[in-house]
Amino acid sequence: MQAKRIYLDYAATSPILPEVIDYISEIAKTIFGNPSSTHAEGRIAKSFLEEHRKTISSLLKCNSSELFFTSCGTESNNLILKSSVSTLGVKRIISSPIEHSCNLQCFKWLQKEYKTQVDFLKVNEFGQIDLEELESLLHDNSQKTLVSLMHVNNELGTMLNLEETGHICRKHHALFHTDTVQGIGFFPYNFSELPIDFASGSAHKFYAPKSCGFAYINNQNILEPLLHGGSQERSVRAGTENLIGIGAMSKALSYCYADLENRMTHLEQLNLQLRSLLSKQFPDILINSPWHASSPKILNVQFPYFEGIELLTIKLDIEGLSVSGGSACASGAETASHVISQIRPDHPGKAIRFSFSHLTNSEEIERCVSILAKVIH
Amino acid sequence: MQAKRIYLDYAATSPILPEVIDYISEIAKTIFGNPSSTHAEGRIAKSFLEEHRKTISSLLKCNSSELFFTSCGTESNNLILKSSVSTLGVKRIISSPIEHSCNLQCFKWLQKEYKTQVDFLKVNEFGQIDLEELESLLHDNSQKTLVSLMHVNNELGTMLNLEETGHICRKHHALFHTDTVQGIGFFPYNFSELPIDFASGSAHKFYAPKSCGFAYINNQNILEPLLHGGSQERSVRAGTENLIGIGAMSKALSYCYADLENRMTHLEQLNLQLRSLLSKQFPDILINSPWHASSPKILNVQFPYFEGIELLTIKLDIEGLSVSGGSACASGAETASHVISQIRPDHPGKAIRFSFSHLTNSEEIERCVSILAKVIH
Repeated sequence: MQAKRIYLDYAATSPILPEVIDYISEIAKTIFGNPSSTHAEGRIAKSFLEEHRKTISSLLKCNSSELFFTSCGTESNNLILKSSVSTLGVKRIISSPIEHSCNLQCFKWLQKEYKTQVDFLKVNEFGQIDLEELESLLHDNSQKTLVSLMHVNNELGTMLNLEETGHICRKHHALFHTDTVQGIGFFPYNFSELPIDFASGSAHKFYAPKSCGFAYINNQNILEPLLHGGSQERSVRAGTENLIGIGAMSKALSYCYADLENRMTHLEQLNLQLRSLLSKQFPDILINSPWHASSPKILNVQFPYFEGIELLTIKLDIEGLSVSGGSACASGAETASHVISQIRPDHPGKAIRFSFSHLTNSEEIERCVSILAKVIH
Repeated sequence: MQAKRIYLDYAATSPILPEVIDYISEIAKTIFGNPSSTHAEGRIAKSFLEEHRKTISSLLKCNSSELFFTSCGTESNNLILKSSVSTLGVKRIISSPIEHSCNLQCFKWLQKEYKTQVDFLKVNEFGQIDLEELESLLHDNSQKTLVSLMHVNNELGTMLNLEETGHICRKHHALFHTDTVQGIGFFPYNFSELPIDFASGSAHKFYAPKSCGFAYINNQNILEPLLHGGSQERSVRAGTENLIGIGAMSKALSYCYADLENRMTHLEQLNLQLRSLLSKQFPDILINSPWHASSPKILNVQFPYFEGIELLTIKLDIEGLSVSGGSACASGAETASHVISQIRPDHPGKAIRFSFSHLTNSEEIERCVSILAKVIH
């Protein structure tokens, strides 16, 4: 009998929870009206939509009027970044070179289309920024500035202190956008108390279907839509609302936050187990995820150069281990990670991102290391 | 026992077919990888995605490389219109004042952001344009021009002859975009042979879930993305692909085209029955949908003024009849339809859009007319 495959790429995407699958069927069978229609079917759909907006906003501790449903994290970040420039008059963006590709590509586009100035902070070998450098850049407040820094780096797991960063932004009257796609469902958020203006979420990272997300836009900021049309989502996002996706996202997020502590403890144990086994087995590796400042969901490990290492993830896949050499969104083909080339510019070898879930067990971690040992030695 | 409600608003949205609901569960349980991941789970997802792209493109008779998945019809039209201006150098758009609000709102935005010239053709009392007026506008070819005209008007059902219109555009070297959202699944399309450059579709109009759509972009045109990020959809649309939505859309479209003739005959019978019963019951009505040049799915009827007519759709709803006073997307609140105020500027009263499906039966049409009689008389 063939051994069951080991999937350690939950940062790329996650399977849908069984109770969420059941709920999807229930929605599909019972709610079909267009929430913009004024008749009974429309009103039922509208109240379903608003009920789930309330559920999600109460989990994230914000006003439901600050939560805008979109088709994905990429769309949320595009909306926030582009509309901050076109609507709020942002002239300068301060960010880091290791953001998710959707943010980096938006910056490029904004430089070209709007002549937006984009300043990148330096990052250390763990992908951490220096808050003093941020503050010194913010001292020049001649142009309206947006700081855009992700909460949990999708390749490294490295986390940003949102409180400290946000307070620095507030002090210097800069707007603050944080891509929270890898954090939502894994860390508690209190959007109302956090000193942030914008955040983003993507359902498929926390056990709900792909192509549903949200933008958190605090009540101080009114953005122009990216998709023009009807007056859905308080005229911030046109298009008939994704009832199935939103219902499923709400259900999955409720699941995640109902048992957050146990799930996170489990992830910490898996992460620690893998760190420890890998360090014993491969003394030359470098760990790219800082232990006390990263999400336990992700462990990024730099394997030193050896012949054939370019094919490492492919060989692991053949042996039944699914891990990632970079972000899925940026790859397609197995290209070098822009994150790793920033934090380890002079280090040959290959970085592997392992990412876990409550569905992962300790035996899979052991087998994962055995497979690595077989392939590498 | 309360009589079952009558839903005659299938142009606003449709319920999901039972076989499509089953398929959604199957996809949710079996396919979860990120199509951009290179490991086994990713490749399975990628091949699922491409298989359905082939299915849909073969139903619409185009190359699968010309089909780009999006989150809805609104997004597809936004992508096509905005990117035609930003990427292809379109300086002038010729359209009509009775397009879907997503197209009209894009025109407004393009006028403001890109100084795009927008010329509107006149429409007659059925919402029909004059092709001679189009041709005379196209004689001035000093600026790169895009013609944007919907195939089936979403409020009136009025249809455009795509062949004739497209040939005029080709003759004058203008690009041609047609919003086919109300036509897909109801009329056969041969995108490769039609003289069109761009079209759009939305799954929830043909018995699949909301928030999944596609843009047809013919191989002659390469568009810049509207949503920047990863290289999904051949770098035209970033964001992890909607596996459930795309699979469901493909299944529903296959269903629609497998039995198109019978379904359309059924719609014609319902439409004719309602026309005839309404004309007998209310001799003063005006029919806004031209019999030989409109989709049988839609019947738009102008009721003459009487006291309290503003509340007509609300009263019908109370009696168990769901119809629409305009497009759902443009309403939310029951505002006057921009389409009706164009075609009947001097006619007081109220237009009602009735729209049908293969799920509608003749007895419902009879009951619909009885409810109208009760409310109006």
